[in-house]
Amino acid sequence: MPDILSNLDALQREITNSDFDAVIAMSPENVPYTSGVLLWTQRFIRDRLALVVWPKDGEPTFITATNEEGYVREKTWIQDVRGYVQHRSSPIQVLAEVLREKGLSAGRIGIEPGYLSAEHYSELTSTLPEAQFLSCESLFSKVRMIKTPAELEVLTRGAVATEHALMATYSTVNTGESERNLVARLGGNILQSGAELPAFLYLTVGSNTGHAHPDPTPLQVSEGDLIKTDCGGYFSGYYSDIGRTAVVGKASPEQRSIYDRLMEVHRATIAAMQPGTPASGVFEVAAQGYRDVDIPFNLAFAGHGVGLYIHEAPMLAADDHTVLQPNMFFAVETRVRWPGQQGFHIEDMIVIRDQGPEVVTTFMDTDQLMVL
Amino acid sequence: MPDILSNLDALQREITNSDFDAVIAMSPENVPYTSGVLLWTQRFIRDRLALVVWPKDGEPTFITATNEEGYVREKTWIQDVRGYVQHRSSPIQVLAEVLREKGLSAGRIGIEPGYLSAEHYSELTSTLPEAQFLSCESLFSKVRMIKTPAELEVLTRGAVATEHALMATYSTVNTGESERNLVARLGGNILQSGAELPAFLYLTVGSNTGHAHPDPTPLQVSEGDLIKTDCGGYFSGYYSDIGRTAVVGKASPEQRSIYDRLMEVHRATIAAMQPGTPASGVFEVAAQGYRDVDIPFNLAFAGHGVGLYIHEAPMLAADDHTVLQPNMFFAVETRVRWPGQQGFHIEDMIVIRDQGPEVVTTFMDTDQLMVL
Repeated sequence: MPDILSNLDALQREITNSDFDAVIAMSPENVPYTSGVLLWTQRFIRDRLALVVWPKDGEPTFITATNEEGYVREKTWIQDVRGYVQHRSSPIQVLAEVLREKGLSAGRIGIEPGYLSAEHYSELTSTLPEAQFLSCESLFSKVRMIKTPAELEVLTRGAVATEHALMATYSTVNTGESERNLVARLGGNILQSGAELPAFLYLTVGSNTGHAHPDPTPLQVSEGDLIKTDCGGYFSGYYSDIGRTAVVGKASPEQRSIYDRLMEVHRATIAAMQPGTPASGVFEVAAQGYRDVDIPFNLAFAGHGVGLYIHEAPMLAADDHTVLQPNMFFAVETRVRWPGQQGFHIEDMIVIRDQGPEVVTTFMDTDQLMVL
Repeated sequence: MPDILSNLDALQREITNSDFDAVIAMSPENVPYTSGVLLWTQRFIRDRLALVVWPKDGEPTFITATNEEGYVREKTWIQDVRGYVQHRSSPIQVLAEVLREKGLSAGRIGIEPGYLSAEHYSELTSTLPEAQFLSCESLFSKVRMIKTPAELEVLTRGAVATEHALMATYSTVNTGESERNLVARLGGNILQSGAELPAFLYLTVGSNTGHAHPDPTPLQVSEGDLIKTDCGGYFSGYYSDIGRTAVVGKASPEQRSIYDRLMEVHRATIAAMQPGTPASGVFEVAAQGYRDVDIPFNLAFAGHGVGLYIHEAPMLAADDHTVLQPNMFFAVETRVRWPGQQGFHIEDMIVIRDQGPEVVTTFMDTDQLMVL
């Protein structure tokens, strides 16, 4: 991440207006959001904690494993960087020391209890028994869910690049080719399209389309097979997430009928995404849409906010009443699956504008079931 | 994961001989290890818990989000599978119900406090106030660190395939090519070599080699530049992890000298990996090796066990006194970095045999600094 894409002023305002004496960014999302440094290893080496301590008054501190310290110092705008040697000293002890230095050992400290492990939490509370630790997750998500122009640029670039990568893959499908081979080509295309890394590559063929997130298999493409993809990559650390379903050779009337009905639901869901509508209201429109076209729907959400985390606020789900606002960025996914038989998945990325929802992923047309 | 690669008999024995009434697999490693089902989404959708409850007596239960339920039912050997709808019901409540059914609501329950979030832990302890929750992480890691023949086959295949992918990338480097482009090609090659997904692609050029895990940049390859790579993929869900350093055109005497001295340390570290030696003893040999050849060393470990997690027991670190045994599988990494200037990294994968360490990654010779 070369520059600060995030809205640090809004974050500072939220902290100033909160009851917290300090908030601590802990997750692989909030650490880059606050510091401008994307630490890749945070995403798969869980025990290598990175922490940004952001006091209500005064300067923030970045705590990192020494392996990453040189990189952090080069990339972050934060002046006070402290290293700890993994397997020799504990990041929680460094954190406690920093909080004591800032006079906050009995303060109200915002943490991320949905991310921090029970083990580290227990070490933290026993090291600073007089502090009060409370969740500051909603503070972060409130700021993060309104994307900055720079974030929208990165998210849009990633979404469109992923569409191009998927189109390049679908355009070159051959019967007899294995699912595994198609997945490999898709991943390569996502990398060539500018991602730092593919994030997920759920491309399935034939009866495997009935599953959401299976392993790639040696199953070969046959005439008449559905090919269903839900894929994404990391672009400057931000996720892309798109889905497209196609058929090889010729679509059956049943395949066309399911697809067309699903597209009705998809269009209705997107049309409901007006500024001022609660996320749960969009979910209800989607749920009603499935009922109207007689497609079973027992899934938990109709889409989700996307950014540095794959599912971020707001969730288009029954329990999320967040009101949609301009500059929110979503993946809207309309899908049906019969495990072991077949499945369909249409997923677009959408930015909320003052005047309504704008579909970003228009390169691969979804109006009709694509025939390869 | 088509078959059970793991050692369920050994796991059952450990549970039988333990004080636990049940252990609960929670992490993206222990869930596939116990169930035979790799849930990819566990690795990046943290809030979508999957749990395997394994009682000392009786049959295990698999708790999964309904999104994954069909796949789980098709793949696992576990008969009792329970689904929960995310954003509507809590997996912790389902877990509590299962423990009550099994008569264990006041039992001694093994959990993974290094993985379970503070939030879920708090929900669990308040829902079942009479149960005792204790870490069973060492029970799992004791079993997992001795690889089965099937696991060794997968790990070896992944290691060698990753080496081939890196060789294919290094073999086609052109001056003027960007770091970003090389990273994309490496990822594509890892996919083509049979990985489900690349896991990490730290390929750096020139002054960027001074960092461990940076973002790929537009920096172009010039004559005389070092190229340093630390990369890996997922193969049947297991990690590969290798590292190689090369130079473009012609090596300077200083580059050769650093590389040759590093290789001395690398050879000495590997030679120390005899069955019966403690992991900390291998670390000491490495640390002494760096001192002997006058290369700075302030890193936390000289290598690590590898399997379903990237850093698993034993760690070749000062605080890990686990004794090396046959069928352990390691990544041994010997490296030095001067941030903003240059760095070198040599990493091999090694299996411990009765008669000593066996290097698995012999395709790309490390004896001398490779010239591209």
